[in-house]
Amino acid sequence: MTTSDSTSAPKEQSVHDVLDMKPLGDRKFLGPSVPSAFTRTFGGQVVAQALRAAQLTVEGKRAHSLHSYFLEGGIAAQPIEFEVEHVRDGRTFSCRRVEGFQNGKRMMIMTVNFHHDKDRGPEHATAMPHVPGPEEAIDHLEIRPRSAQKRKLDWMDWDIRAVEESKLTEEQLHPAGQGTHQYLWFKNTGVMGDDQDVHQAALTYLSDMTLLYTALLDHPEQELQVASLDHAMWFLRPVRVDEWLLVDQYSPSAGGGVGLTKGNVFNQQGELVAVLSQEGLMREPN
Amino acid sequence: MTTSDSTSAPKEQSVHDVLDMKPLGDRKFLGPSVPSAFTRTFGGQVVAQALRAAQLTVEGKRAHSLHSYFLEGGIAAQPIEFEVEHVRDGRTFSCRRVEGFQNGKRMMIMTVNFHHDKDRGPEHATAMPHVPGPEEAIDHLEIRPRSAQKRKLDWMDWDIRAVEESKLTEEQLHPAGQGTHQYLWFKNTGVMGDDQDVHQAALTYLSDMTLLYTALLDHPEQELQVASLDHAMWFLRPVRVDEWLLVDQYSPSAGGGVGLTKGNVFNQQGELVAVLSQEGLMREPN
Repeated sequence: MTTSDSTSAPKEQSVHDVLDMKPLGDRKFLGPSVPSAFTRTFGGQVVAQALRAAQLTVEGKRAHSLHSYFLEGGIAAQPIEFEVEHVRDGRTFSCRRVEGFQNGKRMMIMTVNFHHDKDRGPEHATAMPHVPGPEEAIDHLEIRPRSAQKRKLDWMDWDIRAVEESKLTEEQLHPAGQGTHQYLWFKNTGVMGDDQDVHQAALTYLSDMTLLYTALLDHPEQELQVASLDHAMWFLRPVRVDEWLLVDQYSPSAGGGVGLTKGNVFNQQGELVAVLSQEGLMREPN
Repeated sequence: MTTSDSTSAPKEQSVHDVLDMKPLGDRKFLGPSVPSAFTRTFGGQVVAQALRAAQLTVEGKRAHSLHSYFLEGGIAAQPIEFEVEHVRDGRTFSCRRVEGFQNGKRMMIMTVNFHHDKDRGPEHATAMPHVPGPEEAIDHLEIRPRSAQKRKLDWMDWDIRAVEESKLTEEQLHPAGQGTHQYLWFKNTGVMGDDQDVHQAALTYLSDMTLLYTALLDHPEQELQVASLDHAMWFLRPVRVDEWLLVDQYSPSAGGGVGLTKGNVFNQQGELVAVLSQEGLMREPN
């Protein structure tokens, strides 16, 4: 409780540390490395930093979708160099390609599109499932104890809670003939400010935390090699990650050593704010 | 019925004419223009040709996903030049970026990933909805009469049938709180052969025919400017487009002048063979 104690204590990491990009000159940015329990860079960090790099080259428009591929596993202890290509700047849309490098090797590629906010059109959205709220949900580490210690470090200033299966109806667990759905509540406990770009990038970080594991829910016993292949997001409405977000996630398919996963992200007002998609390698070891 | 009659009759186009890429030297291909009722190039043609170009540079692996953006409307009467970048060739995966050009202007970009077929892992898939089969469905032009003549030319050798809403249950029309689902049966009536690459590319062509309009099902009265923005596909299992395929398509969201659509593609054995996603501009005219 003394001053010297508080200065010697390790600084608590926040998602802001991840998003604190250093400009490296024209259209190049350095994405910082953050302390990690992983040896390989967490995919959500890579995609969030790539989006942040693209955002820093666009004025007056907001990202509405991104599509990325992971090419090589990154080294968590090393920063990542990002290069942004200005693909197109129109009146309504701007398109960017981003590439991430470590030691001169290209580790990820992403395309992201930006849209001004002046258009109007029809309005509709998938309704939020009526599942128990965050106050009734449990710490997500309780349902994934094996990786609890590892994840504690990387999930930083995020409160992540899982809705227990026993509290869900059969229709909520397996809607429309799909495999098991998992419902998680996420909230950032730090000071996030009001910059929508930052909230989008923070959402990108969290969107990779639990999604891929959804494909393994119905195969708990299998020993598998798992790695993200692609990651796509559609930002549908303004989002605040410092308010509770419900991620309804499931896997439409697994087979041939890959698994596909989907997520719908709702805010507590029931608005669908984003849609996620990720495919991953999930193969039996040779 | 005479020889001279049959030679003077216009040759019936097939999807093979679309996919008949001409090599232009190292990693460049010309995607032919086909007779069209559209002034602007049909998006399905562009993505199918881009995929075909990428396939022609990869040996021993199969496309498992593609992510593309449309940058500029193409001129339907002009061919498209495609350039393929070899992003990565690993033991398990190969990644390609493809760019399409007309008159030196970049009109589309795509990333596509290829996977060898030697991996094994967990197996599951969303179940096919039990909707009426193609023999009970109606010509899709009956439900979209306004554009019937236009589409007749571009949909070439495809038999496309719609399941009537009156034959669907409420659960099939609006599963899991989603907007209206539309169920269409597709089959190519030509001679397709057995090359899985060609079937994938043909599926890509058809996947853009009706998907985006799904976002307008609940807004039939609105006058809107509509254009495709992105197009993503996940090829999950082997597919034959010369056998009936059911596309279960719906729109998770529309707002701010854009609409997002999704599709699940099943074969008649009930296997989920592909998943589609497309976002489009759908804005009120200024």
